Amino acid sequence: YSEPSPELASKHILTHGIPDRGPNIHVYDNHVLAYDQAKKTPIWVAERITQGHVDGPADRKNIRFKPDPEISTQFSADNLDYLRSGWSRGHMSPAGDNKHSQEAMSQSFYLSNIVPQNLENNAGFWNRLEMYCRELTQRYHAVTIFSGPLSLPSPSDNGKLVVTYPVIGKNQVAVPTHLYKVIIVEDTNSNPVAIGSFIVPNEPIGFEHALTEYQVPLDDVERKTGVTFTPKLDTSHLGNLCEIDSCKLMPKRDFDSYFIGRRLKSAQNRQSFEKAWNELEVKNIPPSQYHIDLYRHKMKEFEEKERKNPEE
Amino acid sequence: YSEPSPELASKHILTHGIPDRGPNIHVYDNHVLAYDQAKKTPIWVAERITQGHVDGPADRKNIRFKPDPEISTQFSADNLDYLRSGWSRGHMSPAGDNKHSQEAMSQSFYLSNIVPQNLENNAGFWNRLEMYCRELTQRYHAVTIFSGPLSLPSPSDNGKLVVTYPVIGKNQVAVPTHLYKVIIVEDTNSNPVAIGSFIVPNEPIGFEHALTEYQVPLDDVERKTGVTFTPKLDTSHLGNLCEIDSCKLMPKRDFDSYFIGRRLKSAQNRQSFEKAWNELEVKNIPPSQYHIDLYRHKMKEFEEKERKNPEE
Ligand SMILES: [Mg+2]
Ligand SMILES: [Mg+2]
Repeated sequence: YSEPSPELASKHILTHGIPDRGPNIHVYDNHVLAYDQAKKTPIWVAERITQGHVDGPADRKNIRFKPDPEISTQFSADNLDYLRSGWSRGHMSPAGDNKHSQEAMSQSFYLSNIVPQNLENNAGFWNRLEMYCRELTQRYHAVTIFSGPLSLPSPSDNGKLVVTYPVIGKNQVAVPTHLYKVIIVEDTNSNPVAIGSFIVPNEPIGFEHALTEYQVPLDDVERKTGVTFTPKLDTSHLGNLCEIDSCKLMPKRDFDSYFIGRRLKSAQNRQSFEKAWNELEVKNIPPSQYHIDLYRHKMKEFEEKERKNPEE
Repeated sequence: YSEPSPELASKHILTHGIPDRGPNIHVYDNHVLAYDQAKKTPIWVAERITQGHVDGPADRKNIRFKPDPEISTQFSADNLDYLRSGWSRGHMSPAGDNKHSQEAMSQSFYLSNIVPQNLENNAGFWNRLEMYCRELTQRYHAVTIFSGPLSLPSPSDNGKLVVTYPVIGKNQVAVPTHLYKVIIVEDTNSNPVAIGSFIVPNEPIGFEHALTEYQVPLDDVERKTGVTFTPKLDTSHLGNLCEIDSCKLMPKRDFDSYFIGRRLKSAQNRQSFEKAWNELEVKNIPPSQYHIDLYRHKMKEFEEKERKNPEE
């Protein structure tokens, strides 16, 4: 008698090869992920960011979302799946965590890093959570982040638990009911000091909700994803991120101000600049020094343009 | 600049270990499987059976379903999840494919090989499909079979595709909407000659439905599971199993007769034997030679018992 083993199995049972679900991990310049060939979304996306990663000249202006060349088309989403689906393309490793490298940022637009995400959630609560992660790099040496989609059950009419989610496009990309993030912060000796795990519904979440409402034990995320995120790290001795740090997301006023700043910065002409500037008044936000500097800078830019192309 | 690689990723990004979803495959005496730690069911279960496997003395009488000792309890189903759930414990590698070895049969009762299955489907259509696979071992040297669960979308009220499935028990075991089987038969030189792929809804399916109604291209099963089943075999040159062989499942009359035979054989006393025998008359099935032999054999057995324990 010989013990069952992969070798024996290949010889006697799997004579046509070992059934394959693709590589266990896909590695990029600034993120690593496991991909679900059935759902056409990532299972988990890992990053480890420092101040150096989240600051830099890379920008998303000329980057397009595209299928990951590492994923076989048989198992890949494409942009058409998302088009007019009602769902936005939500980064798991955010573009803004890749400011240090145009190439790394470009890789974050591979659809292997994307899930169908509610647009308001993507631009709002989830965006603020991502900003909070970047803010952590100011207070901690490094921040390890695992992000991904979940398909969770909810009680049906008869009280039984049922999982329900849409699939979109020809490739039937699975729309997650929830998204998760596991955040681990390190001290200056690269020792992990605190962990926070969060499960956030894939729907609009207003400013009245605190991040702590969505905090869960790591074990919850592990059971629901089937993933053990840190096999080499016993997380039980780590502090609670929301006690050690604040877990406070950017308040509405600052968030609005930040967004208007982005619109001012990207404005291509006086008209759209003034439209954004007007938002400051409508929302009763006093222009910050940043806004005022932008005003001077952009006005010069527009005058320059007008001198060059007086017809336009 | 160095190319992204698992080694680099482990050094710079995955400093706490590579997130783990469990072993890629689990190997047993007579089956191999990949396990879904999120759904607490197998993803695929592979067997390669011959006449020698499906015939023998092993029996399921004293075997109990149990959690697979290879699966961490954090990610395992248990029997309580199924209890009073309304769903039966459906084998993917069927007990009856392991008649040659009590140990192999026992391993087929690990919950890693089990999915929540509609009881009528399990005892009826799916059972007949399994019988058909065993029947194929009489005409072919070997039969490779991949079986597993699927969560497939269906159109919702607004016409959009939605996946809906219950989860059962404390461990939230996912109830599949469908089950699949991929069957490859080999000639006497162990060359694969034909393939048949089937997707069967996890619901009662009557005798009026032919197996061919559920036949699909292999590519369909691959896209929906995310699995490439035979990486070493180009299946495009293989024949269609349902053209080369019959794909005919056992008709109702034979199926009833077979089941009554099983009840007669397992009867522990005259009363339950006679109840089963009465079924033959009710269903207007003339007793086969097998039934008649059982009658003689069991009557002797009961008389023996009564002589030994006249009080009972
Ligand atoms: Mg986003
Ligand atoms: Mg069964």
